[in-house]
Amino acid sequence: VCVCVCVYACVWVTVGLVSRGGPPLTPRSPPGRSVQRMMAEKVLTVDTMNSCVKKVEYAVRGPIVLRAVQIEKELKEGVQKPFSEVIKANIGDAHAMGQQPITFFRQVLAMCSYPELLDDDRFPEDAKGRARRILQGCGGQSIGAYSASQGIECVRQDVARYVERRDGGVPSDPDNIYLTTGASDGIVTMLKLLVAGEGRSRTGVMISIPQYPLYSAALAELGAVQVNYFLNEERCWSLDVSELRRALADARRHCNPRALCIINPGNPTGQVQSRQCIEDVIRFAAKERLFLMADEVYQDNVYAEGCEFHSFKKVLFEMGPEFSSTVELASFHSTSKCYMGECGFRGGYMEVVNMDPEVKAQLTKLVSVRLCPPVPGQALMDLVVNPPQPGEPSYSTFIRERKATLSSLAERARLTEQILNTVPGIACNPVQGAMYSFPRVTLPARAIREAERGQAPDMFYCMKLLEETGICLVPGSGFGQRDGTFHFRMTILPPTDKLKILLSKVKDFHQRFIQQYS
Amino acid sequence: VCVCVCVYACVWVTVGLVSRGGPPLTPRSPPGRSVQRMMAEKVLTVDTMNSCVKKVEYAVRGPIVLRAVQIEKELKEGVQKPFSEVIKANIGDAHAMGQQPITFFRQVLAMCSYPELLDDDRFPEDAKGRARRILQGCGGQSIGAYSASQGIECVRQDVARYVERRDGGVPSDPDNIYLTTGASDGIVTMLKLLVAGEGRSRTGVMISIPQYPLYSAALAELGAVQVNYFLNEERCWSLDVSELRRALADARRHCNPRALCIINPGNPTGQVQSRQCIEDVIRFAAKERLFLMADEVYQDNVYAEGCEFHSFKKVLFEMGPEFSSTVELASFHSTSKCYMGECGFRGGYMEVVNMDPEVKAQLTKLVSVRLCPPVPGQALMDLVVNPPQPGEPSYSTFIRERKATLSSLAERARLTEQILNTVPGIACNPVQGAMYSFPRVTLPARAIREAERGQAPDMFYCMKLLEETGICLVPGSGFGQRDGTFHFRMTILPPTDKLKILLSKVKDFHQRFIQQYS
Repeated sequence: VCVCVCVYACVWVTVGLVSRGGPPLTPRSPPGRSVQRMMAEKVLTVDTMNSCVKKVEYAVRGPIVLRAVQIEKELKEGVQKPFSEVIKANIGDAHAMGQQPITFFRQVLAMCSYPELLDDDRFPEDAKGRARRILQGCGGQSIGAYSASQGIECVRQDVARYVERRDGGVPSDPDNIYLTTGASDGIVTMLKLLVAGEGRSRTGVMISIPQYPLYSAALAELGAVQVNYFLNEERCWSLDVSELRRALADARRHCNPRALCIINPGNPTGQVQSRQCIEDVIRFAAKERLFLMADEVYQDNVYAEGCEFHSFKKVLFEMGPEFSSTVELASFHSTSKCYMGECGFRGGYMEVVNMDPEVKAQLTKLVSVRLCPPVPGQALMDLVVNPPQPGEPSYSTFIRERKATLSSLAERARLTEQILNTVPGIACNPVQGAMYSFPRVTLPARAIREAERGQAPDMFYCMKLLEETGICLVPGSGFGQRDGTFHFRMTILPPTDKLKILLSKVKDFHQRFIQQYS
Repeated sequence: VCVCVCVYACVWVTVGLVSRGGPPLTPRSPPGRSVQRMMAEKVLTVDTMNSCVKKVEYAVRGPIVLRAVQIEKELKEGVQKPFSEVIKANIGDAHAMGQQPITFFRQVLAMCSYPELLDDDRFPEDAKGRARRILQGCGGQSIGAYSASQGIECVRQDVARYVERRDGGVPSDPDNIYLTTGASDGIVTMLKLLVAGEGRSRTGVMISIPQYPLYSAALAELGAVQVNYFLNEERCWSLDVSELRRALADARRHCNPRALCIINPGNPTGQVQSRQCIEDVIRFAAKERLFLMADEVYQDNVYAEGCEFHSFKKVLFEMGPEFSSTVELASFHSTSKCYMGECGFRGGYMEVVNMDPEVKAQLTKLVSVRLCPPVPGQALMDLVVNPPQPGEPSYSTFIRERKATLSSLAERARLTEQILNTVPGIACNPVQGAMYSFPRVTLPARAIREAERGQAPDMFYCMKLLEETGICLVPGSGFGQRDGTFHFRMTILPPTDKLKILLSKVKDFHQRFIQQYS
């Protein structure tokens, strides 16, 4: 135990404190700062650097993951551990957990990279057609050329057509589509536009608690005010408009709340919002004049019976012109999740609706400074929104691969919920969608006291789990949670066999932990 | 003329004013704002958005490029013009101008995308070996997995070894290498760390004038103070330390200058700094306690006899421990320039030297929020720093391709300087390196008066050039220049035949322009 705490404390001081619930805290000064004098000679020190950056936290890759990487190295060096490998269930990284890429996507990408392959018999005609079309959209027919800053035009057209199909014919304008470097890039860019004012007029942005920590990190970096609204754990992490109202009223006393962020399907909480809920949220945003940001990167990851994905844009347009012509909305998608899991390509897009044309020109200008999103990611985004069609040679393989991945994920979602709920002291809501479970763990008072000497109790719990079993989860405190409650986020991505082992190890650990601290 | 000015004014109002020389100006309110009432109903308007973003400008993709894209569309629609195509010499986008990718790089990338190709006889063994090595460095052996936020470990090792070879054995630590999304990403991230303070203690950052406008754009967005130092046009755009001293002394009256940015070889000015100059700059930075940022993305683009690329890091270490153990330096490289020209992949790295370990931990934390740089770009960066070696099957083709590109660029650099200098009223310094000429144009007083009704005189000049000839250049005002002087930036990237036509069209236009306004 002692070793683990020591190591953790060390990492913690260096990288920043993972806060519990509310807005991130500033890391304290390191205790044994014996090198103070040397530091003072540097131009750039933690004391003289950007203070907003210091407040940034990102638990998904925080101290626990640094420790996991360290443990992996120790294992390689032959250090004896009670386990033989580290299982990283901390991050939604499907390929890293063994998921295979979609054959069609990778064939097209190979031809885009090395167009000589277009003459190769090994590749089907539909894949060749897609590669040719993408290359024709590129300067000099090379994915090595910069694209337009907003993204390759034919890709934006394909995205718009995809959105129209998805939303039952609601029109989508390619001019409102911006390709991005993963969804994160689009989200940060939109937040950047929204941040203004000082003191009580500073922009506030409403985010769910628990939240995906990109939001809190971006708000900290931009110096915006994080306005927390709590999801209802008792009702399967649903979003209650009454809670939005409470949070907004509180926030208006000290800032200017201007935007409302929704993650649906939910990360880290896995809920899928009902159509009614989305309608209520839109009415609320319209009435309270909030810019809506809909993070819909898990739109294909819906597993639970009776649940269905409804895009904010579709619901907005079904509510009639009173809403569809006024409510400002940006929605985000990505190549990283769903059945593709292509995180490394950093592909994504955002669609803006009802954005002021002058602001849109500013947005276009702003994204031009970074020149363009990575073109291979744009190509991949194109394939996701324009996959093989019935009658094309790659269709059946594509459908088989997609279905296999999604149905296996659905099985793993059920399995995770089911096994975790057999453990006394762990309570897990149904994983309706996305890629994570976010179970609540009841921790003994002694463990809480022991932990609070230096860290959040669920960080203490997860760090012990890592040291004893090699399983890397993220403590709930990294996402925010109601005071006095503790959780962890675990991906459902390990292959079924491995997931079963992992869940049984978590079960055993939890029982040992309870015994030890009771 | 009237049409051109109209169109320009419209774009200008929407996208922002290209300033002349000094720090960027805030765009004025649009004149005929008849839609005021509708705007007022939006949550996000130009009046309520982030005011720092409004100040951002990026001339390389500014109003003139928007107009060029529009003209291309008009040509496609059959509108009659005095030319049949738009030639974009505004941006260093080699593949878009017809440069062919390096075969070896693209073979490896194709195999990384679709590993089934590893069994294909068509690819040489060295390419297969590189692909296998990169894939082994990826989670699940897929470039679709997230990498470590700092970049794939084996790629960082290869970068470090490349830096050591390049710098004659000066050691490089893979832990000091951060892979980035193009060099721009690294530069903005470093600036972000450096920005602190308010009012007179606000961070100032010294940048050359003329500069690459990423710098002014990033400083505007971050709300840092841009501190201009002027390059000496009379001495081939050289950097004089006396001018650094002047600029620093001036700046210290109103801000806290903490960083000095150098672009070598120069963009947009094409100069290659002498070893002596670099040493002087390092002494200056050491004495004045400035964090050095060395933008070295054109390190292979050196053409002029007697010129040689010296990295700041190498010179720093040759100056002995008094400097090499104290001066803080970040240097930047990219896959986008040199002989590769692979802009679309957004690959790059930065190396930090003498960075405070606590700041480094903050940097690592900050980059983790965006998860990782695009993995295909990381793979490409790896190939650039670890290309085919003598004895390997791809070596001779690789060398032939690289040499062909670089010697053709050298020829085009000479040609550009030579032809431009035959035009009375145009004076062009030797293009010693990089990819641009930045000639000075003498404009008649009447043209200056005419232009100043609405725009910078060199913008007026370039816009007329575009409308009359289809040639798209960037006015010097987008990079900054001494008051009363006018320039344009033109890439040397069009293929030699096209470049000759382009230069002769510029010559004819200039003569017509002078006649018209004399």
